[in-house]
Amino acid sequence: MEIAQSLQQIQSSYIREILSAACNKNVISLAGGLPDEQAFPIDLMRPTLTQLAEMPNVFQYGATAGYGPLLDFLQHHFALPDSHKVMMCTGSQQGLDLIARAYINPGDTVVMEAPSYLGAMQVFGLVSANIVTVAQNAHGPDLVQLEQCFEQQSPKMFYAVPDFHNPTGVCWSLETRQQVAALCIKYNVAFIEDAPYRELRFSGNPIPLVSDFCPEHSIVLRSFSKIASPGLRLGAVSGKIAFLDPLIKVKQGADLHSSVPMQALLLGLLQHDNFGLHIDKIRALYKTRYQVLFDALQQQLPVTCGMNSVEGGMFIWVTLPECDTFALAKTLLANGVAVVPSPVFYPEAHPAQAALRLNFTNATAEELQEAVRRLTDVLHNTLAVI
Amino acid sequence: MEIAQSLQQIQSSYIREILSAACNKNVISLAGGLPDEQAFPIDLMRPTLTQLAEMPNVFQYGATAGYGPLLDFLQHHFALPDSHKVMMCTGSQQGLDLIARAYINPGDTVVMEAPSYLGAMQVFGLVSANIVTVAQNAHGPDLVQLEQCFEQQSPKMFYAVPDFHNPTGVCWSLETRQQVAALCIKYNVAFIEDAPYRELRFSGNPIPLVSDFCPEHSIVLRSFSKIASPGLRLGAVSGKIAFLDPLIKVKQGADLHSSVPMQALLLGLLQHDNFGLHIDKIRALYKTRYQVLFDALQQQLPVTCGMNSVEGGMFIWVTLPECDTFALAKTLLANGVAVVPSPVFYPEAHPAQAALRLNFTNATAEELQEAVRRLTDVLHNTLAVI
Repeated sequence: MEIAQSLQQIQSSYIREILSAACNKNVISLAGGLPDEQAFPIDLMRPTLTQLAEMPNVFQYGATAGYGPLLDFLQHHFALPDSHKVMMCTGSQQGLDLIARAYINPGDTVVMEAPSYLGAMQVFGLVSANIVTVAQNAHGPDLVQLEQCFEQQSPKMFYAVPDFHNPTGVCWSLETRQQVAALCIKYNVAFIEDAPYRELRFSGNPIPLVSDFCPEHSIVLRSFSKIASPGLRLGAVSGKIAFLDPLIKVKQGADLHSSVPMQALLLGLLQHDNFGLHIDKIRALYKTRYQVLFDALQQQLPVTCGMNSVEGGMFIWVTLPECDTFALAKTLLANGVAVVPSPVFYPEAHPAQAALRLNFTNATAEELQEAVRRLTDVLHNTLAVI
Repeated sequence: MEIAQSLQQIQSSYIREILSAACNKNVISLAGGLPDEQAFPIDLMRPTLTQLAEMPNVFQYGATAGYGPLLDFLQHHFALPDSHKVMMCTGSQQGLDLIARAYINPGDTVVMEAPSYLGAMQVFGLVSANIVTVAQNAHGPDLVQLEQCFEQQSPKMFYAVPDFHNPTGVCWSLETRQQVAALCIKYNVAFIEDAPYRELRFSGNPIPLVSDFCPEHSIVLRSFSKIASPGLRLGAVSGKIAFLDPLIKVKQGADLHSSVPMQALLLGLLQHDNFGLHIDKIRALYKTRYQVLFDALQQQLPVTCGMNSVEGGMFIWVTLPECDTFALAKTLLANGVAVVPSPVFYPEAHPAQAALRLNFTNATAEELQEAVRRLTDVLHNTLAVI
């Protein structure tokens, strides 16, 4: 049976493939975007896990939009006005998939920064969107390019990760946020704000969502994978009701609804008195690990490489002199360290800045130091011969 | 933001809408396809629910195809050869959605029986398939029509629910199964076998899957919603490896993977010593309820109505003299009984046999008897004036 044309052009996720290779005990993986398993708030989930057995209703079919008590909690928690609503998804990845399926006709233009989140490119690729990119600088997207693109190409939506961008770690400045929002309103472009790392800020001051400046022109995707547990597969999508209802209609066909016991478990966790402390704890842990990775890289990276500091999230983006980054990643894997080469974060055939994405949330401080030794050994050897 | 063209033609699920209306305490609902909440095997899940707190790995990101120990168990449980594999989905509904997205180009022909499962029509509608129907008789699809259709229209797949069909309750005969399999092989049509009700047989003898007769030309969808719990949202898809791999690729974009704690919970349940007894118990319960509904209908239905006995599943299909079944369902709802009118089980603009789908697994015996009184009162009044 021949596969659909829309699927023929989709690459299987290199990251998910390297993740299985990286399971080898001798390999230190900085490749995934995995939170630290030891830091999961399982103790805070334990009371609800036990209570689930006394809640037969959560084992029945549920509403497509989500578990009522959780939706009520989140409506308040996210401070949504009555004109807006929230729905639960099987991970925020599904929220993105629903947005693409509900709104994109083949050939419709979707704008992203380059580089950008691989999972978003997959999802928009599956609906045969015309993906157009704008360059990213230290404050966010290049605003001149963005306005030109909005003006000339009338895109349907602009997808972005303004908080601790995947893969670059860039956090958009307040001014950029305001200006992007203004452009979205001016050109009637829907802003799809993917905010999975927003709560993982470990320094600097919180900045409003871009969507706070264009609430009628945006949809916000939030993940509970980074602050609770990815295994649960729960994310939330919010926006004005007219934007959300079509997503619910697609979700009926996609999976009817997300797991209700998992939603009840998440609600118990979010309402736990110590959940705030848990967030503080993972922020502190990731800050320490980030600092270890950053300091080690700063000391050992070849001078031809570059990187920027980040204030949160999960990744450091190391730029390299021009080279075959796939071959480099393969050599690194053979030398016991897994990383992700930059081209996977660009649309196919798009010229990619030579770079590597390094994760600092999953490996221990000792592993991070060893990983940098292995990484920089290879880099010094490889880049020397370029 | 204008919704995608593929979504514009999709009706929101009438059933899911009537389900919310049916929440009214004064309404007895025979509308949904809900298992009995009291019969959920929560006591058998309790040990695993408690153990989950000691299994941090299930809270981490997992493999797209599913939780390894569960996949191993199911490979053996379903007696799959090495050439075949199984993957877990967020409900078997997602499995169907993945099949449609992985294989159907807009305009590709998909064959179904008429009437057919609403959720399948939604899913194939979302990928703009050309849905072609063949009539169903007491033994399954009309084989002459089916062969004509295969020969003349070269469909890509034939989707069906051979065990206790939704909505008609028909269970395909052994001969029909063998002949459908032979036709699928002869005309190289993939058989998509949706088997959510297969374990709910309460009389007669088990019959092999259609796919047992065409294992290289089929994909099987199984649900754990009817024998375990729908709230978990877990289904399994199996077939030859070449058929399954594209589904896994689409699932990466759709939701990365299904909830791992839920998969671990399901494995614990399936391996529980008393799980077989649980299945026996729900079969006995549903047999009793079916008999109550069937007997009451037989005694009280107007002679102009018809129905067939079933050997399992969840539904009785009551045929009516020609009438406006939507208006009838509305009158019934006003009189305290919720049912589903037949047109929702046909592709739009397809002529529908006037009928009602009645569920017998969710209401108690007393409620079923009262529901039949309300139903037949209205039918005697309404049909008398047609």
